[in-house]
Amino acid sequence: MVLKNFDVLIEKVKSFPEPKKVVVAAAGDAHTLEAIREAVDEGIVKPVLVGDKAKILEIAAGIGLAVEEDDIYDEPEAAAAAQRSVALIHEGRGDFIMKGKLETAQILKPVVNRETGLGTGRVMSHFVFDELPYYHKLLVTTDGGMMTYPTLEQKKDIIVNTVETLEALGYENPKVACVAAVEKVNPKMPETVEADALKQMNRNGEITGCIIEGPISLDIALSKEIADLKGYDSPVAGDADVILVPNIQVGNILGKSITVIARGNMAGFIVGAKVPIVLTSRGSSAKEKYLSLVLASAVTAGK
Amino acid sequence: MVLKNFDVLIEKVKSFPEPKKVVVAAAGDAHTLEAIREAVDEGIVKPVLVGDKAKILEIAAGIGLAVEEDDIYDEPEAAAAAQRSVALIHEGRGDFIMKGKLETAQILKPVVNRETGLGTGRVMSHFVFDELPYYHKLLVTTDGGMMTYPTLEQKKDIIVNTVETLEALGYENPKVACVAAVEKVNPKMPETVEADALKQMNRNGEITGCIIEGPISLDIALSKEIADLKGYDSPVAGDADVILVPNIQVGNILGKSITVIARGNMAGFIVGAKVPIVLTSRGSSAKEKYLSLVLASAVTAGK
Repeated sequence: MVLKNFDVLIEKVKSFPEPKKVVVAAAGDAHTLEAIREAVDEGIVKPVLVGDKAKILEIAAGIGLAVEEDDIYDEPEAAAAAQRSVALIHEGRGDFIMKGKLETAQILKPVVNRETGLGTGRVMSHFVFDELPYYHKLLVTTDGGMMTYPTLEQKKDIIVNTVETLEALGYENPKVACVAAVEKVNPKMPETVEADALKQMNRNGEITGCIIEGPISLDIALSKEIADLKGYDSPVAGDADVILVPNIQVGNILGKSITVIARGNMAGFIVGAKVPIVLTSRGSSAKEKYLSLVLASAVTAGK
Repeated sequence: MVLKNFDVLIEKVKSFPEPKKVVVAAAGDAHTLEAIREAVDEGIVKPVLVGDKAKILEIAAGIGLAVEEDDIYDEPEAAAAAQRSVALIHEGRGDFIMKGKLETAQILKPVVNRETGLGTGRVMSHFVFDELPYYHKLLVTTDGGMMTYPTLEQKKDIIVNTVETLEALGYENPKVACVAAVEKVNPKMPETVEADALKQMNRNGEITGCIIEGPISLDIALSKEIADLKGYDSPVAGDADVILVPNIQVGNILGKSITVIARGNMAGFIVGAKVPIVLTSRGSSAKEKYLSLVLASAVTAGK
C-alpha cells in the first residue's frame, strides 16, 4: 500500500469511527484554533486545549469552535502548558500534540525529558509528506527541520522513525533514497560515504522494514527515465517513497523548492517520540496546518 | 534590465548580426552535433569542430549539418582535441567552447593550465539559468556542479563570476541571495556565518556590482509574501536574481528539484574562464543543450 495523494489520506481519516484527540499546547492563538476548527468541522479531531482558558474561550467563541469546558486546561504560562500537555498524553487524554503559541524549544523540552517525557530512545526527526505536481505518490522528505547535521547513527534513527511512521499508515517495505550530488561513493564527499553505509546497514539486517538505496541523486530517485538514461539499476530508482537528506541545509532547500518553486502541498510533524508532535509556524499555510492534523490522526490510528 | 524568460534571450541572440563561433571539443558525437545543428539552423552559432574528422563528417552528413571542411580540425584523441580547442580560442578562431564526447576533467585540464589555459585567476564555477513556473524572471543558481565545498574566498569568486556574466547580459546590480536553512547567523551553522560574511564584503566594497543578502532562506528570496509574513525586509526578498548555495549537495538538490519536481527549463555553463564552457551531459535534454548554446552566445556577445 502506498498513498497516492492527500485526498486518499483525508478519506481514510474521515472513515475512522471517532476523531483523534489532539492536545494543543498554548492554545490561546487564533491561527492555531482556526486550523483546529476546520479539522473539528470535518470530524477529524477532537481538541484538548491547554493554555490561557479565558483567552481560549474568547477566541473559540469568536471563530465558532465548540469545545467542552472539561477539555480546556488552564495553564496561562507557556512552559507549564507544554508540561501539562505531555502529562495529558501519559494520562491517555490525548492521541497526539500540536504546538500552539510557544517556541518549538519550549514544547520540546518536556517531550525530551528522560524521566517524564515521551522519548523512544531514538533522536526525533521531522517527517514531511509532499504532494508533488508530477509524481505518482506522496513523497516523504526528511529531515529538513529537526536534526541539523545528523551523524550516521542519527541518520539510522531518522530512517527507523520514518519507516515506523509509514508502517502505521499501512506501508510495507518503503523505498528509501539516501540522496547525494553524485551516485558514486567519493571519500571527499562524506554524504556519499554515509549513504552507502546506510545501504549496507539495510543489506546486513541492521535497518529492516525498508529498501535503502544510496548514494543516489534526486532525479534518479524520482524518474525511472533518468535512471535508465544514466544506467542506474535499483528498485528505488524512479519509485522512492522517502528522500533522506544528508543535513538541514539540503533538506531546507528541498522543502522550500517543493512548496515555493513547484507549489506542491505538504504536511509534517515530529516523529521519534511516543506520539506525533505537529509543529506548524506562522509561515505555514492553512492547508498545511489542516493536512498535518490529518496526517497525525492517520498515523495515530495505525499505532 | 532583467531577463524575464528564455524566449527573450533567444530573440536577443537571433538579433545579432552574425552567429557566434562555438568550438566543439571531441565533436564526433551524434547527441552533441544534433544540438549544434538546431542552433546552426536558427542562425545562432557557427561550429568549429575538433575531433575525429572522418566520424564528424559521417555524423554531420547523417543529420544534415552543413559544415565547412576548414572548420574541422582532425584530433581523434580526446586530450589532444581538448588542447587544440583551447588553442583555437587563443587564436581567435572561436568565441566559446562546448564539450563533446569526452570527460569533463579532460576538457577542463587544458582550460585550467596556468600557462596555456584560459584562467582568470578566479576559481571556475557552474552558472545555471532557470526558468521557473511561478517566478517573474530567470533565476541563476550557482554553484551546483563545479566547486564541491567552496571556501569563503571561493564563494566570493563564484559571486564575481556570476555578476560578470550577468553584466555581459545587460544586468545592473543583480540581487544575490546567499541561502541557508535559517535567516539568523548561527555559529553552529557555518553556512549562515559565511552568508553573512559575503553580505559584509558587499557592504564594505570588497564585492561590487551587486546587492548581496544573507543568510536568507530560499522561500524568502523568491516570495515577497513569505518575506512579509516572516518580517524579513530586504530588496533581495522576493526578487532574487541569483541563488548562491553553500555547497554542491545543496546546489544539486536545488537543480534537480527545479528540473524534475517543478519541470522548469534550465541552461548552464562554466564561468570564470576567459570564455564560457558549455558542459552538457547525457542526462541533459535537447532543450537544455540548445538553451545553453543560446546563453553562451548571448554572454559572449556582451563581453
